[in-house]
Amino acid sequence: MTKPIFFNAQHSPIGAFASFTLGERGPKGGFGHEIGKPADQNVYIGLENSEQEDVFDMLPFYGAPDGVLANYTPEEIAKQSKVTKTFSEGEIDRDYHPCIDTWHAGDLSFRITSPVKKIPDPAQASVAQLMDTLLPVVFVDITVDNTECDKPRKVCFGYGSTDSQKDFALHYLQHHHKDMNSLNGIGSGRNLAIVSCNGPKDPVHARVGFEIETLLTLKEEPTTSLGGCAVLVATVEPGVEKTLRFAVCFHRQGIVTSGMDASYFYTKWWKTVRDVASYAVENHERLVMEWQMPDTNLLIVKQLSANQNFQLTHAIHSYYGSTQLLQLEDGKPFWIVNEGEYRMINTLDLVVDHAFFELIMNPWTVRNNLEAFAETHSYYDQVSSPSNPKTLLDGGITFTHDMGVANHISPPQYSAYERPFLTDCFSYMSCEELTNWILTACMYISSTNDSDFVNHRLGLLKECLQSLVNRDHPDPKQRNGVMKLNSSRTQGGAEITTYDSLDTSLGQATENIYIAGKCWASYLALEKVLRDANATDEADLAATQAELCAQTMVASIDASSNLFPAIINTTTPHPARIIPAIEALVYPLFTGRKDALSFDGKFAAYLKALTQHLQSILQPGICLFEDGGWKLSSTSDNSWLSKIYLCQFVAREILKQSASDKADAAHVGWLTSPKNTYWAWSDQIIAGVALGSKYYPRGVTSILWCLEGDL
Amino acid sequence: MTKPIFFNAQHSPIGAFASFTLGERGPKGGFGHEIGKPADQNVYIGLENSEQEDVFDMLPFYGAPDGVLANYTPEEIAKQSKVTKTFSEGEIDRDYHPCIDTWHAGDLSFRITSPVKKIPDPAQASVAQLMDTLLPVVFVDITVDNTECDKPRKVCFGYGSTDSQKDFALHYLQHHHKDMNSLNGIGSGRNLAIVSCNGPKDPVHARVGFEIETLLTLKEEPTTSLGGCAVLVATVEPGVEKTLRFAVCFHRQGIVTSGMDASYFYTKWWKTVRDVASYAVENHERLVMEWQMPDTNLLIVKQLSANQNFQLTHAIHSYYGSTQLLQLEDGKPFWIVNEGEYRMINTLDLVVDHAFFELIMNPWTVRNNLEAFAETHSYYDQVSSPSNPKTLLDGGITFTHDMGVANHISPPQYSAYERPFLTDCFSYMSCEELTNWILTACMYISSTNDSDFVNHRLGLLKECLQSLVNRDHPDPKQRNGVMKLNSSRTQGGAEITTYDSLDTSLGQATENIYIAGKCWASYLALEKVLRDANATDEADLAATQAELCAQTMVASIDASSNLFPAIINTTTPHPARIIPAIEALVYPLFTGRKDALSFDGKFAAYLKALTQHLQSILQPGICLFEDGGWKLSSTSDNSWLSKIYLCQFVAREILKQSASDKADAAHVGWLTSPKNTYWAWSDQIIAGVALGSKYYPRGVTSILWCLEGDL
Repeated sequence: MTKPIFFNAQHSPIGAFASFTLGERGPKGGFGHEIGKPADQNVYIGLENSEQEDVFDMLPFYGAPDGVLANYTPEEIAKQSKVTKTFSEGEIDRDYHPCIDTWHAGDLSFRITSPVKKIPDPAQASVAQLMDTLLPVVFVDITVDNTECDKPRKVCFGYGSTDSQKDFALHYLQHHHKDMNSLNGIGSGRNLAIVSCNGPKDPVHARVGFEIETLLTLKEEPTTSLGGCAVLVATVEPGVEKTLRFAVCFHRQGIVTSGMDASYFYTKWWKTVRDVASYAVENHERLVMEWQMPDTNLLIVKQLSANQNFQLTHAIHSYYGSTQLLQLEDGKPFWIVNEGEYRMINTLDLVVDHAFFELIMNPWTVRNNLEAFAETHSYYDQVSSPSNPKTLLDGGITFTHDMGVANHISPPQYSAYERPFLTDCFSYMSCEELTNWILTACMYISSTNDSDFVNHRLGLLKECLQSLVNRDHPDPKQRNGVMKLNSSRTQGGAEITTYDSLDTSLGQATENIYIAGKCWASYLALEKVLRDANATDEADLAATQAELCAQTMVASIDASSNLFPAIINTTTPHPARIIPAIEALVYPLFTGRKDALSFDGKFAAYLKALTQHLQSILQPGICLFEDGGWKLSSTSDNSWLSKIYLCQFVAREILKQSASDKADAAHVGWLTSPKNTYWAWSDQIIAGVALGSKYYPRGVTSILWCLEGDL
Repeated sequence: MTKPIFFNAQHSPIGAFASFTLGERGPKGGFGHEIGKPADQNVYIGLENSEQEDVFDMLPFYGAPDGVLANYTPEEIAKQSKVTKTFSEGEIDRDYHPCIDTWHAGDLSFRITSPVKKIPDPAQASVAQLMDTLLPVVFVDITVDNTECDKPRKVCFGYGSTDSQKDFALHYLQHHHKDMNSLNGIGSGRNLAIVSCNGPKDPVHARVGFEIETLLTLKEEPTTSLGGCAVLVATVEPGVEKTLRFAVCFHRQGIVTSGMDASYFYTKWWKTVRDVASYAVENHERLVMEWQMPDTNLLIVKQLSANQNFQLTHAIHSYYGSTQLLQLEDGKPFWIVNEGEYRMINTLDLVVDHAFFELIMNPWTVRNNLEAFAETHSYYDQVSSPSNPKTLLDGGITFTHDMGVANHISPPQYSAYERPFLTDCFSYMSCEELTNWILTACMYISSTNDSDFVNHRLGLLKECLQSLVNRDHPDPKQRNGVMKLNSSRTQGGAEITTYDSLDTSLGQATENIYIAGKCWASYLALEKVLRDANATDEADLAATQAELCAQTMVASIDASSNLFPAIINTTTPHPARIIPAIEALVYPLFTGRKDALSFDGKFAAYLKALTQHLQSILQPGICLFEDGGWKLSSTSDNSWLSKIYLCQFVAREILKQSASDKADAAHVGWLTSPKNTYWAWSDQIIAGVALGSKYYPRGVTSILWCLEGDL
C-alpha cells in the first residue's frame, strides 16, 4: 500500500472521553472533549526555517484563521502569510503505532504518546496504579535536530479555535491568583491545559493572542490573554538536538451526567485541570516511558501484515477516544464506551464486540457493564408472532440497546435509541440484546472464572435462557431453536438487529440467519455455564435448543445453491447472501465450547455448510466489492468494518479459509480515502464512503487477529 | 416610526450570564449561556390551525433543520413541510417592555417575563429575598384563545439545536433515576431545563426527537430521547381560552472561572438545574406577578418618547444578559457585567457608564466592583512624556481596563485587554481608567453616603488624586490640569481611551479634550469627597487642578471657530470636532458638584464654550449623520450609542439644549435595521451598521433620560 500519512487519529487518555485528534490536513483536529467528532481547531506545529528568521515550516494541521469559520486550506493561508509555510507533503513522514504517533519533517519530530494500558480493577488496585493509568493526559514530545545549523531556531506548538464563542478563554497557566507561576503553559477555561514539562534550563514561552503569525514573531513576551490563538514557543540553540515535552491535560469537574448522577473517576485524585497538569509535570519522564509500550504483548509480538496492523492500531486509537470512566455517587466505577459520533452510552451490541478487547485488557469493565445492564437497563416484555401481533405470549427478561446518550443516562428499563411502532432503524433489538448480554456474560465467566459473578447472577442467567427460549416459542412443540417472535415493546412493529441501517437481509431480527447463529451460540454458552453450576435441567434445555437451532438453520439451506438464506422459512426466499451467517461461530471459542466447533462433532453439518456458504459468497458480485473488500450482504452496499474483522477471524481461525491481503488492502483503502480520513476509524462504509458510525470504537474486534493460532 | 417587530432581544435572569434571546427571524435566537451572541437555535412556537388538523401556524423563529448548519429561511422550511407554516408577518404584533415581551399572532400570545428587580445587598438581605431576585429563570406564558373554535387545538413551545455535537443531550425532566416524575419538561445536559409549571389539569407533553414535524404529529408519547429537537405540546379544548406557563431554567454548577476560583452565587440555594426548576414550579404564580413590573418607578412613570422608550427598554434587556453574580471561595459576592460580544469582565470604562443604572438599582454592586479593582486589579506605574518616552517620572496608582475575559480572571494588576508597545487599539488606558475609578467611587459615595467605604478607601482616594496629578505632571510648575503623560506600562507606546476603535480624535488619551473633561470632573469629585473627609490639603490640590484644567481647555478653543479642538496644544491642530467634549459634565451632577455646573459660577466660561461648541457641531456634515443621528467625532463614522445617550442627557439637562425626536428616530433606525437586529442592542454603529460592541450592555446610560428634570 501507499503509506498513509494524512488521516486523523484519536490520541486519548483512558476513560476521559477526550481526544487530541490529529492528522487530517487543515483545521480538522485539536482537543475534543465529550464530542463525537474532531474539535475542528487549528493545530500549530512548526520549526523556524534554518535560513530565514521568523519564517516557520509548519505541519499542515491548520487552515481557517482563528475565530473565522471560513474554510481556508493551509496553502491559502500560507499564501497570505510571510511567517508560516507548510512543509511540502513529500517532506513529511509518519510512524503510527498504538501508543505512539510521530511525524517527521525536516529537522522536526512531533510525537504524541497515549496509553494502551490495563486499568487495574479499582476494587483492588492501589491509588498509585490507578492514577498512572487514568491520568487524563496525552504527552507530546517535540524533538529538533539543530546539529547541522549554526543559528538558534524557534519551535512552536499551539492551537487556535475556529469558534471563539463556544470555547472558553485561553489563558496562561502561570496566572492563578492563588498559585502564581507554579505551572507554565496554556489553559482554556477549566477543561483543558497544555503544560510545559520542561525545566528552567529549557525555557518555554506561552503566548496568547489573535493570530499565529504575530505570536511567532513577538520580540517580547505578552502579558495579556485576549484572543483565540495560543502557542508555546521555545528556542533550540545552534548545533544541538533538543527534545521538549508537553502534557495535554483534560478535566471536567463535578457531576457530568443527567438522568443519573456521576462524575469522572479521576476527580477522586485531581480536582482541577491544574492538579492534572501538576501531576503530569512531576511524572512525565516515568509515564512517557511506561506509556510508550502497550500493556499487552499481543500488540507487540504478533506478526500481523502491515494492512492488518494499521487497522488494528487505528481502531485502538478510536476506541480509547470513546472511553469514559465515571464514578457513581457511592464512588463505585461506572465504565462507559460511548458510541462514536452517536455518543450513545454502552450500546450493548457494541459491548459484545468490544468484549474481545476488554477481556484481554480490563475484564472488570466487562462485569461492570453486565451488572449495570442487569441493575438498571433490563426489562421484561411479552412476545408475539409477526403474523399475529396482537396475541401476546410470555416473553421474559431482556436488555436495552444502550444506557443513554451524550452523558444523559436513560431512565430505568429504557434506552435512548429504541422506539415502538417501527420495523427498521430505531426499532427494538430485544432478542439481539438478550443474546449480547448472554454471550458477554458467558465470555466473561469463561475468561475470568469469576465464581462470585456466577453465584450472583445465576438466577438471571436462567431467566435469560427462558426468555431466549420464549422468543423461539413459549410452546415447546412450536420451537425450532430460532427467534421467531417480536417483543411487545415494538407495539406491533418488528425487532431489528445491530445492523439497523442495512436492508432486511441483516436488519430484520425474526428468522434471520445472523440472529439464529447468535441464538445457537447463546444456548451453547448458557449450557456450559448452567451445567458447571449444576443447573442440569436448564443446561439440557439449552443444549436441546442449540441442536434444534442448528438443525433449523441447516434445513434452511437452499438446495439449488447450497447457500444459507438471509431470512429462513420465508415463503418467498430473501435473495440476500450474508457473511454474518458465520459471525456467531466466534463465541463457542470464548465461552468454553470449542467442542461445538469440531468438524466431526455434533454441529459438523452446520460448520461444513457455513464453510461452503462462505466460500461461495466471497466472490465478486456477491459478497466482494470490486476492490476486494468484503460486502456483508449481497443486497446492500453498506458494509461494517468491525464485523468484517470479526468474520475474517472466524473464516481463518474456525473455518480454516486462507486469506489474501487484497481484502485488507481494500479496507485500508476505505479508511485512508480522503473522503473518510477526517473521521479517524469509521465502521459503516457504504461503497467506500464512511456514511455512518464514524469516529467509532467498534474496530477493536481486530484484536482477534492477534489471537489466531493461539486458541 | 414603523413599529419594529423582528429584532432579537435578550430575556435574562439577573446575574446568570444567560439569555433566552428571541425576535430575529430564522434560527437566530434560543438559549445562550455564557456566550456573547445568540445561541442560533431554532425556537418553535406555534398553534394548530383552527381548520387543518396537524398543521401548525408558527412564529418565524426557526429555519435550519435541527442538526444541520445550512441556513434555511423559515419560508424555505415551510415549503418543505406540510406540518409547520409561519404566520404571515402582518399577522404578528409585539409588545416590548422592560420586563415583558409579548408576541401576538392569530389566537396565540407568547410572553416572556424577565426580572428588572433590585438585588438586595447580600450582606443584609434575607435568603428568600435573594432567591426571588436571583432565580436563574425566565418565565414563558402561552395564551391560546380558542373561544371561537369548536375543535381542540394543540399548542407547542420547543427548540432545536443546529449544532448537535456542541450541545448536551436533550432529555425528559421526568426521567431521573432518583427523582422520577417530579418534574415535567425538557432538559439539556445539566445546564438548561424548560419545565412545565402547569398542574395535572393542564397536561403538557414533552417530546424529544429528530425533527419538529414528526414530534408535532405523534399520536403516542415517545419514551426515548434521541435527537436534537425538543418540544412541549399541550391541547386547548374547544371554546376556551387557556394560559400555559413554563420556566426556562439556567444553571451551571461548581467553579466556573479560571485564574481565580468562583461559582455562581445562586448555587448557594440551587445545586442543580432541577432544583431551579422545582423552585420555579412552586413559585411561578407569585414570581411572574412580581416580575411583571420593574423594581424602579423611573421606568414606569417617566414619559419618554416612543423612540426613547424603545432604546431604554432594549438596552436594559441587553444589560441583564451580560450580568453574572458569582461568589468567591469565601462565599462573598463578586458582581460582574460581561462586555457583550467581547465577554471582558467588568471593563472599567463600562463600569463608570453602568453606574448611572446600578446606583439606582443595586448600589452595592458598584462598591463590589470598586473594591474588586482596588484589591486585585490596580497597579502602580511611572509616566513619561510622548516627546521624551524614555525619561520616566513618578506615576502612581491606577486600575486595569478589565478583570479578565470569558470567565477567566486576569492576573493581579493586569487586564485581559491592555498590551504594551501600541498607540491604538489594545494599548493601555491607565489615565482614563483612573478617572473611571475615581468618578465611580465618588458617584457611589455621593449616592449612598457610605461612610464605611470612605473611611476604608480614603487613603486610596488620596493616592488616586496624586496619581492623576502626576499624569498632568509631577512637577507642579509644569501642570496645566490636563493629562499629558503616558503610562510606563505602554513601554513607549501611547495611552488610548475607551473610544479605542475611533481615530485619534477620541482614541489618543494625552491632551484629549474628552479625557481632559474627565480629569476636570475627577478633580471636582475628589475635592468634594476629600474636603468632606477633612483632607483639606488634598482637597485644595484637587480644586486647583480642576481650575487649571478648565482654564487650559477654554484656552485651547480655536479662535476662528469658537470650537474646542479634539486634541489640545498640538502644533498642527487636529481637525476633528467631538461631541464627547461635553461628556464629563454629567459627573458633577452625580458627585455633589452641581455648583460647578452653574452658568454664572467658577466654570461659566467652560460651560458657555461647551454650549457654543455643541450647538455649532450638531450640524449635518460635522457631528450629525444624514439621517439626523449623532456622530461623536466629525472625522470618524464610528459612533457609539451608549455615549450618544449620555451626551444627549448632558445636552438637555445641563447645557439646556432642546432635543428633536429626529436623532432618536435615527438611532432607533440603526438598532432596528435588518443588518443589526440579530445582535439585540449594540453600541458601535459605523455608518448605520453594528460592527463592534454588539450584544452589549452599555446602553443603560439611557436611564439618565428618566432623571431629566429631577436633578
